[in-house]
Amino acid sequence: MHGGNDWSGRVSGEFYAIIPAGGSGTRLWPISRAAKPKFLLPLPGPRTMIQETVHRLAAVCSPSNLLVITGQQHAREVSLQLPELSSDQIIVESVPRGSGPAIGLAAVIIHRRNPHAIIGSFAADHIVTEPAVFEHTIRTAVAVASKGYLVTIGLQTSYPETGYGYIRSGSSIGHVNGLDIREVDAFKEKPDRTTAIEYVESGEYLWNASMFVCQVQTLMNELHEHLPGVADALERIASVWDTPERETAMQEIWPEIEDVTIDHGILEHSNRVAVVPGRFGWTDLGDWHGFGNMMSNIKVESNENQNDHGQWSGNYVVNAELLSLDSTNSIVFGHGRLIALLGLDNVAVIDTEDALLICNRTRAQDVRKVVEQLKQRGSSKLT
Amino acid sequence: MHGGNDWSGRVSGEFYAIIPAGGSGTRLWPISRAAKPKFLLPLPGPRTMIQETVHRLAAVCSPSNLLVITGQQHAREVSLQLPELSSDQIIVESVPRGSGPAIGLAAVIIHRRNPHAIIGSFAADHIVTEPAVFEHTIRTAVAVASKGYLVTIGLQTSYPETGYGYIRSGSSIGHVNGLDIREVDAFKEKPDRTTAIEYVESGEYLWNASMFVCQVQTLMNELHEHLPGVADALERIASVWDTPERETAMQEIWPEIEDVTIDHGILEHSNRVAVVPGRFGWTDLGDWHGFGNMMSNIKVESNENQNDHGQWSGNYVVNAELLSLDSTNSIVFGHGRLIALLGLDNVAVIDTEDALLICNRTRAQDVRKVVEQLKQRGSSKLT
Repeated sequence: MHGGNDWSGRVSGEFYAIIPAGGSGTRLWPISRAAKPKFLLPLPGPRTMIQETVHRLAAVCSPSNLLVITGQQHAREVSLQLPELSSDQIIVESVPRGSGPAIGLAAVIIHRRNPHAIIGSFAADHIVTEPAVFEHTIRTAVAVASKGYLVTIGLQTSYPETGYGYIRSGSSIGHVNGLDIREVDAFKEKPDRTTAIEYVESGEYLWNASMFVCQVQTLMNELHEHLPGVADALERIASVWDTPERETAMQEIWPEIEDVTIDHGILEHSNRVAVVPGRFGWTDLGDWHGFGNMMSNIKVESNENQNDHGQWSGNYVVNAELLSLDSTNSIVFGHGRLIALLGLDNVAVIDTEDALLICNRTRAQDVRKVVEQLKQRGSSKLT
Repeated sequence: MHGGNDWSGRVSGEFYAIIPAGGSGTRLWPISRAAKPKFLLPLPGPRTMIQETVHRLAAVCSPSNLLVITGQQHAREVSLQLPELSSDQIIVESVPRGSGPAIGLAAVIIHRRNPHAIIGSFAADHIVTEPAVFEHTIRTAVAVASKGYLVTIGLQTSYPETGYGYIRSGSSIGHVNGLDIREVDAFKEKPDRTTAIEYVESGEYLWNASMFVCQVQTLMNELHEHLPGVADALERIASVWDTPERETAMQEIWPEIEDVTIDHGILEHSNRVAVVPGRFGWTDLGDWHGFGNMMSNIKVESNENQNDHGQWSGNYVVNAELLSLDSTNSIVFGHGRLIALLGLDNVAVIDTEDALLICNRTRAQDVRKVVEQLKQRGSSKLT
């Protein structure tokens, strides 16, 4: 499955996985809170998202080759949730600096340990289904990366999502492991709905899953070329990483580094970017609506939660006894109580100990506005 | 206000108020439960409905002239909620027998104490706003009753409610205290929507509020004429009411009495029925939608809960902190938590300790089906 040509999947002890674990996740309020963003939560459970991410990567990466990058306020919880990681595998940002410096720092540290490493970056708060397809995709990306490419994973679009960035694919580079590897023509920001429809109908666009794979040396070269200031600062920090100076460097150098994403800072400027198509189920779990879409697809496949006529009701339920009467396409997160829905379609019900959200799913992106209003009210303990 | 002609309002020590306190109230689930029907609940609060009923009647009736009729399973809670009533003022049904026997028994007992009494019957689970108008209406009904009429109160219709019975008013009997007293042409059952619209548009119909006032002697005569079997049985029970035989009589005679309403059994057959128009706010609190209508009207008057543009949002909230974003016409009963609504219209959210109902208000009548399904599931502790 993973071999058969000269790009054959090579995932060895030289593959390192970087897991940026940040973000506030306000759109998944009231389950996600500032003190507990989504990567620390069991969505959909039973593992937390970061535990699930580590578990998923275990298929392609030795556990000792994992590096998590997270903020000071979450470091303790991350190490509690991932007892298999040594403290050396958890990089703590003194302040958030964007994915460019975060992944860059991890890369510089890895580069000093193993300059021949291949690295991959995978967010701690995405959901992936079809893990065998994921594994095949990553093995393929590693094979392509070993040729000197910065390899992104582009997900096949299934509907005009406005909450994702898009990748326009260009000329074919070749087929690897049965996958059509393309050059990247352009990265596109989250589009409006009309544009998103054009993208999907054109067939030329893929969702940008913010996953990429490359040789650590390739990334070092690109960092120095496109973000020389960032690269220099990172080298200075890395040079004292294994000394008592680490803390001082993180306090003094890190906060001054440019806040930039890896996409904006490097991928958009590089001419060595390739895209491997991903056909696994994926969501960045941006809001409750997207989460419901994802989960409903899984449930449809497994024929669960059908109504009396054997049809899928579209109701997705976690941790609640649901009594649904003429109610469809709902997302219900409970905390153990009975929840009865009567005559409703397309609502999200998120029931927590101290706050209850009931939301029209078409408005799921605006849950962050609810959180903003709560902050304005001074209800910070609820945010 | 209450005088000025020969029917002048006469509410004296001879006026007795009967309060039937029964019903399961499944349509107000999950706040009302079999063990705690709506008359025992603080809707809308702070008093319970039966406490509020007694308080309202205190304006027209001496406290010692109140009689409550309730079932065995609720008798203890009734006496706890109404400590001002002596045990003699609480009649306990061994089994429910409908309003005919219930009001009849109270009437027979009152008749033995004071054959000149005027009695009124008022359900324990209705909401009345504008208490001064209510008082004026009842004083007027008492004046009309003193002429030998069985007097019903008919509420001015404001929309085609299908959950109420209707009264078709006939010829005018005269004006009393500024109110146009009419004969009753017919009592109508709960209509379908088309019929309800016809009723309201005709201007000839009033809502049947199941309140009536008459001389106790008049009711005795009508009972013996139209329900002679019921009348005889009630007299047999009443004859031993103040003796140790009461319990035996209630166990042996009461369950054999015909189960009939006062409307079907007497009012529909009598030619002595008059209707006094009521212009106070009233609802039988049949379901959450009706409750919301009622409460919204009150709130509009008091200019509470306006949105940022000074318009009434239509959201009615009890015991919750509500954060409403683009949400209107909702009814929210909380139990202390924050409840956030986003992009929803016309929903009822009833949040209790062990069950949460979210309901399209147009489907509020079907909450009883939710309760039926819960019973089928064996979740009787939730019903």
